[in-house]
Amino acid sequence: MNILDIIEKKRDKKELTKEEIEFFINEYVENKIPDYQMSALIMAIYINGMTNEETTNLTLAMAHSGEILDLSNLNSIIVDKHSTGGVGDKVSLILLPLVASVGVPVAKMSGRGLGFTGGTVDKLESIPGYKTSIDMEDFIQNVKNIGISMISQTLNLAPADKKIYALRDSISCVESIPLIASSIMSKKIASGAQKIVLDVTVGSGAFMKNMESGEKLSRKMIDIGNLANRQTVCILTNMEEPLGLAIGNSLEVIEAIKFLKGEMLEDVKQVVLELGSHMMKLAGLGENLENNKIVLLQNINNGKAYQKFEQLVNKQGGDISYLENTDKFEKASIIEPVYSNKDGYITKIDAKEIGKVACRLGAGRIRKEDEIDKSVGIVLNKKVGDIVKKGDIISFIHANDYKKMIIAKEEIENIFEISKYKTDSIPTILKVIESYGKGKKIIEKNI
Amino acid sequence: MNILDIIEKKRDKKELTKEEIEFFINEYVENKIPDYQMSALIMAIYINGMTNEETTNLTLAMAHSGEILDLSNLNSIIVDKHSTGGVGDKVSLILLPLVASVGVPVAKMSGRGLGFTGGTVDKLESIPGYKTSIDMEDFIQNVKNIGISMISQTLNLAPADKKIYALRDSISCVESIPLIASSIMSKKIASGAQKIVLDVTVGSGAFMKNMESGEKLSRKMIDIGNLANRQTVCILTNMEEPLGLAIGNSLEVIEAIKFLKGEMLEDVKQVVLELGSHMMKLAGLGENLENNKIVLLQNINNGKAYQKFEQLVNKQGGDISYLENTDKFEKASIIEPVYSNKDGYITKIDAKEIGKVACRLGAGRIRKEDEIDKSVGIVLNKKVGDIVKKGDIISFIHANDYKKMIIAKEEIENIFEISKYKTDSIPTILKVIESYGKGKKIIEKNI
Repeated sequence: MNILDIIEKKRDKKELTKEEIEFFINEYVENKIPDYQMSALIMAIYINGMTNEETTNLTLAMAHSGEILDLSNLNSIIVDKHSTGGVGDKVSLILLPLVASVGVPVAKMSGRGLGFTGGTVDKLESIPGYKTSIDMEDFIQNVKNIGISMISQTLNLAPADKKIYALRDSISCVESIPLIASSIMSKKIASGAQKIVLDVTVGSGAFMKNMESGEKLSRKMIDIGNLANRQTVCILTNMEEPLGLAIGNSLEVIEAIKFLKGEMLEDVKQVVLELGSHMMKLAGLGENLENNKIVLLQNINNGKAYQKFEQLVNKQGGDISYLENTDKFEKASIIEPVYSNKDGYITKIDAKEIGKVACRLGAGRIRKEDEIDKSVGIVLNKKVGDIVKKGDIISFIHANDYKKMIIAKEEIENIFEISKYKTDSIPTILKVIESYGKGKKIIEKNI
Repeated sequence: MNILDIIEKKRDKKELTKEEIEFFINEYVENKIPDYQMSALIMAIYINGMTNEETTNLTLAMAHSGEILDLSNLNSIIVDKHSTGGVGDKVSLILLPLVASVGVPVAKMSGRGLGFTGGTVDKLESIPGYKTSIDMEDFIQNVKNIGISMISQTLNLAPADKKIYALRDSISCVESIPLIASSIMSKKIASGAQKIVLDVTVGSGAFMKNMESGEKLSRKMIDIGNLANRQTVCILTNMEEPLGLAIGNSLEVIEAIKFLKGEMLEDVKQVVLELGSHMMKLAGLGENLENNKIVLLQNINNGKAYQKFEQLVNKQGGDISYLENTDKFEKASIIEPVYSNKDGYITKIDAKEIGKVACRLGAGRIRKEDEIDKSVGIVLNKKVGDIVKKGDIISFIHANDYKKMIIAKEEIENIFEISKYKTDSIPTILKVIESYGKGKKIIEKNI
């Protein structure tokens, strides 16, 4: 087997075999195939596509290119959750303690990644003392003892995906359905998932800008899930405007804590309940999604979800007094309101643009080595569909640099689009696409 | 301007501007664009193609990426000749002295290249004393004084083409019409050609395996010629079987010398006269191609073409006694006949396979640094269409290694296909495609 023949096949739109895919993945990880050959192959894949079988074989080859998290001695069905990313996405912080509180075991490894704000791990680290890197043994033990552990990705999971992703980024080949799908699914499989719930974000602040591409990606991941024997459900959610109100690391943790204490923002609540009800179903804790949502809401209202979070933080060395009193979190030195400059209805708050402002304030990383400023960010005071009067506060900027704050203020004023005419707020849950295993019909449900 | 946007455009099958093409060519030559980005772009070009304007801009950008041979002080129309390559191709050795003898100025720079046998320069070097690298001033002076000079490529012509060709070769992107066309035309333009006659070989021993691709490539090069203001004529010639009888460096030189002395093989004669008549026409020495052929034949028969070659060799330091008596050329140590193993008609002598045997005997280079053995090769004794009896000699092997000879003998026996049923010999000139300049109709003539 040789890479030239493989490149030629894909160049000519032919289907690659499992062996060919495993060959180029393994050789690439071992640096036996140079980047310039891999980038030609990736461009050919981008343009000519991949069948479901090819994408699945690519996924499995990448998943097995490094360590695989072995969760077999937990003796449970491991349901993992993943989001394709967005602005103000604090869902994991709320959802995972919540489902753990109803009995879904949570063994979560998260990356830091690049983005408008930090990843889940960065957010957790804004709680003083919280250790995101612990021994694998302690990790498994915590899941056994309290039903949940959330740590940073310490294992060398799917190194092929890491290497290919970096290359894709430098050759304009990021937005490819088979490549995005296999990238996500390979990491999930490597991190031990047996069943997968995917939050496929759609809109300005997401990878997938419209429903068509969101649905395509979802179906591809479900197909991979079927072929790889990992039951997969995709929930398409709105990412035109940021999710919830807070964008920033400790700001989002505070919003998550408040949610777990019962202060639930409507859009966040919808996403959490939709994903949570499916996680329960996949874990075998209830077939009826509406019943599952009721069970989840009960555990918010009776404090069990919040207690599970407190238990998690405590177990991983975090100071739970910050949870009890969120005022203890370190504040940014400047908290500046942004005012509406006219009367009307808010018709648009571009998630991507808001994310970029938050990132420039210091909430996110542009390069891997960048330090995150945990306290900065933006807290929206109004959302799409809200009515405002000139002079009303539409958001707060949390900044540690006066000049950056001034720039952010002007930017945010422009990002909020305000019209005389009322616009309906956008539905949060756009569609659910589920599948019940190999060979069975794929069910799509419009919400 | 940045390379990511350019890659993205071509990835999405959009047309690149002149500025974008110049940007990536210049940056690549200056090593500011890494190979992995260039190879992604090349794959996108391979799959999505290029318009005539794009291909012309690519050609001109590559032509101008290094030195340009300035032949303006020759005060003549410079007509260059190029072949897309084949097995037994000694056309330049015959054609160029011939057209020089009728008044077409010849200022020829040739590469060595990789292939089944050496390039024109390697072949000329089998004449003892012939200097292929001389000063540019002497080169020009020779053309002025005797109407011809043939040297090796000493200038840094079209370095972008060189670099891109090496990359294409390592990512399965050689066989692309726009990339082949721009590669050929850029080198012709950089070497000072104002008008171009192209020998587009078609068949097993050529790049272009069939008429369809040969015609496509020809039209593309004529389109580039039109847009770049370089009148171009393409002669499609047969390369199913080797051209002439000799394959090997000094063996081909001997065949060329004999031709110039009047011993003309039919297929070589057809190619030489077709190309030569067009070169004369482009140089303004006669509109009527049939008349031109008569003039050329006269100069073979009256010895003027041979004398021109002798003058050339003498001027460049070669020993003309080798021309006068070709028996002086160093012979291979083993000259072994290959016999027909049955009665019948020869239906096929696969040019590529014969070329590979010659190369393994030592006549060609596999890597740039390989040494060529000038004396080895193959001399056919029969061609397609000939009748043979069992035991007839079908070819001679010229070898310097007994083991290699034995292997070659068995291979050649198998390469000659012999059938009971007569096959017509293949026409040598397959088609002529010419154009008479910008905006004018393209004329295609089937022979």
